[in-house]
Amino acid sequence: MNKNAFRQLSYGVYVVSTWDNGRATGCTANSAMQITSDPATIAVSINHDNYTNQCIQDTGRFAISILGEHSDPGIIGTFGFKSGRDNNKFDEVESLVKGYMPVVADACAYIVCEVVDKMETSTHTVFLGKVVDADVLKQDDAMTYAYYHNVIKGKSPKNAPTYIAEEQPAATGTKYVCGVCGYEYDGEVPFEELPDDYTCPVCKQPKSVFVKKG
Amino acid sequence: MNKNAFRQLSYGVYVVSTWDNGRATGCTANSAMQITSDPATIAVSINHDNYTNQCIQDTGRFAISILGEHSDPGIIGTFGFKSGRDNNKFDEVESLVKGYMPVVADACAYIVCEVVDKMETSTHTVFLGKVVDADVLKQDDAMTYAYYHNVIKGKSPKNAPTYIAEEQPAATGTKYVCGVCGYEYDGEVPFEELPDDYTCPVCKQPKSVFVKKG
Repeated sequence: MNKNAFRQLSYGVYVVSTWDNGRATGCTANSAMQITSDPATIAVSINHDNYTNQCIQDTGRFAISILGEHSDPGIIGTFGFKSGRDNNKFDEVESLVKGYMPVVADACAYIVCEVVDKMETSTHTVFLGKVVDADVLKQDDAMTYAYYHNVIKGKSPKNAPTYIAEEQPAATGTKYVCGVCGYEYDGEVPFEELPDDYTCPVCKQPKSVFVKKG
Repeated sequence: MNKNAFRQLSYGVYVVSTWDNGRATGCTANSAMQITSDPATIAVSINHDNYTNQCIQDTGRFAISILGEHSDPGIIGTFGFKSGRDNNKFDEVESLVKGYMPVVADACAYIVCEVVDKMETSTHTVFLGKVVDADVLKQDDAMTYAYYHNVIKGKSPKNAPTYIAEEQPAATGTKYVCGVCGYEYDGEVPFEELPDDYTCPVCKQPKSVFVKKG
């Protein structure tokens, strides 16, 4: 079996959110698909280890914020590389309340669902949600996982100080890679000379988690 | 509720296939996602009305052929716009047998699964399959549904007689649209002058199913 075949399945980039006793929380997810059209239902797959899983089971409701190519990639870091058990993720990301659920304001669309069924597997719960609210928030192409992997992770966002690096690669062959999300620093300024408060543009982790490669 | 939000979910383009009493059959699908990694499981959603659904229930096994951007778009027509009940779809498309299942030879990768669970909804079955075989067949970017919709449907394949139309749009403002798959003819040769055996490059339906618009 060649597991590289799995990489050819297409996914989006989503934040799946819900309430935790009145506190908004959520996690990033790639696996969501519409199942029926009338009534509209959507399936999402959430790992048992994600704190959001238990919160969805308790609340019986979840929202899917669909990130666009122009959504701030830092959202992926906030929701993807920390646990909602210990972090108020929505303190860092502007939110809206839609269909009584917290959604990410910088998403291109959202879908709010009420859990109507679920399928348990060894590591994940597949929640089947009946859509109770949905809307487009801004015109943008949906971010695919391939786009996130190939475009965002490969370079800094345009408004980051490192962006110019694309035309002027660093003189050294040494690479610094974020030990949390795998983002590869490719800025013009040598990594060692970056300010101490430099953080990974994708997952917002501090300079200290970067590891030297090559 | 604005159902346009659903269009922002990302999908691939797949052929889900199985055996029907020793005869290979299948249908196109967009909804497939990996659920667990060890053991690897994949969920696919298949409409009850697809003949393939019943065949998967009987066989307990299915294959997912992942189409690439360079796969023949006619495959989508063969598997997507006819019923396997009355058509031997694999007669028109080159196949391989992998993991004891028929797969599309022109796909960029395949995944063969054994059904381990399922979730029923009003119109679709979500099959959970444990992967028993998988491999990459050729280097290609996976075709996303957005690519199919925006690129393939919007114009003819490069090797089709209509391709030149891109630089030389038809003189008339009238459009001819395939009544089966929605493909919009935009060839240089006026639609009326196309030979009688012209078929839709996407779904292979005859010239007679095209409808005039505009």
